Amino acid sequence: MARVVVDVMPKPEILDPQGKAVLGALPRLGFQGVSDVRQGKRFELEIDGDITDELLAEVAQMAETLLSNPVIEDFEVHVEDHSVAEVAAGEGRA
Amino acid sequence: MARVVVDVMPKPEILDPQGKAVLGALPRLGFQGVSDVRQGKRFELEIDGDITDELLAEVAQMAETLLSNPVIEDFEVHVEDHSVAEVAAGEGRA
Amino acid sequence: MARVVVDVMPKPEILDPQGKAVLGALPRLGFQGVSDVRQGKRFELEIDGDITDELLAEVAQMAETLLSNPVIEDFEVHVEDHSVAEVAAGEGRA
Amino acid sequence: MARVVVDVMPKPEILDPQGKAVLGALPRLGFQGVSDVRQGKRFELEIDGDITDELLAEVAQMAETLLSNPVIEDFEVHVEDHSVAEVAAGEGRA
Repeated sequence: MARVVVDVMPKPEILDPQGKAVLGALPRLGFQGVSDVRQGKRFELEIDGDITDELLAEVAQMAETLLSNPVIEDFEVHVEDHSVAEVAAGEGRA
Repeated sequence: MARVVVDVMPKPEILDPQGKAVLGALPRLGFQGVSDVRQGKRFELEIDGDITDELLAEVAQMAETLLSNPVIEDFEVHVEDHSVAEVAAGEGRA
Repeated sequence: MARVVVDVMPKPEILDPQGKAVLGALPRLGFQGVSDVRQGKRFELEIDGDITDELLAEVAQMAETLLSNPVIEDFEVHVEDHSVAEVAAGEGRA
Repeated sequence: MARVVVDVMPKPEILDPQGKAVLGALPRLGFQGVSDVRQGKRFELEIDGDITDELLAEVAQMAETLLSNPVIEDFEVHVEDHSVAEVAAGEGRA
């Protein structure tokens, strides 16, 4: 089984109110030194079968068709060996 | 300048209606073989200064305090050399 | 044709990081006097046929099954005569 | 104390992948007759003081500056006597 991640982010020229709200809230919480925050989406997909170029091309098509709006968002497809949950549980990336 | 990414995902035991909607919509669009989809958030932070253990600890605290709800979500902090936008523009990860 | 709206909000006892970020960012932008912000989702559905009790019960079931996570979110179904877009275009609610 | 709601929806001409995913997932769950779904955001604000035209104008400015991206989203400000949580708890709109 393959785990594939699609990251979707607002394009650089698109205003991102949610990222801006986070950026604006940081100083009051005592965090300095962050100059920009952008907020996007992360999709973790579990897929039957092996990772092949065909599979990744198909996921890119999903990303373009259903996971993002290509006019205002960029996306990136990559293979991930650990989910965020596994990392949080101490099983992941050291 | 450092670019740090915080990925936030619903914990495995938490129902994720948005991921479920994506999963349910895939077959009608002709995509087979996806057995699970989870949807979370991705934050790209630009931070002044170098990446140090202290900086990453501070970002982890931001993630816990402002970027996620630790009761229902897991998060992971990692350093990223390219933003999704740069990858989409062909400058990134080969 | 009927237009039905489903509003989904985090339950009061659930921490809402996005609402908190907005709340924290307001003073820096010059806004005073807001004591709380909660962020949820709004779904506008267009449905064939007339609005009946059966239809609304069916939408409530959609809300419970696909649009919300009932463990952490509340929802409300109501009929709306104008979409936000129509209001924004000056056609709506005076 | 005043409760003011800001609804933010993608403009009609903007593709809405999340709404599309919900729409695509409905038939498989046995729901027929929904012809369109759009997904946006709902903000519930609690504000000190009385509701005045000035207050509503200030909230509209918040909506334009921090809660939405006016290029791709419409918003609507309205006064609400009950929160979704109160309605869900059976205290609200009959």
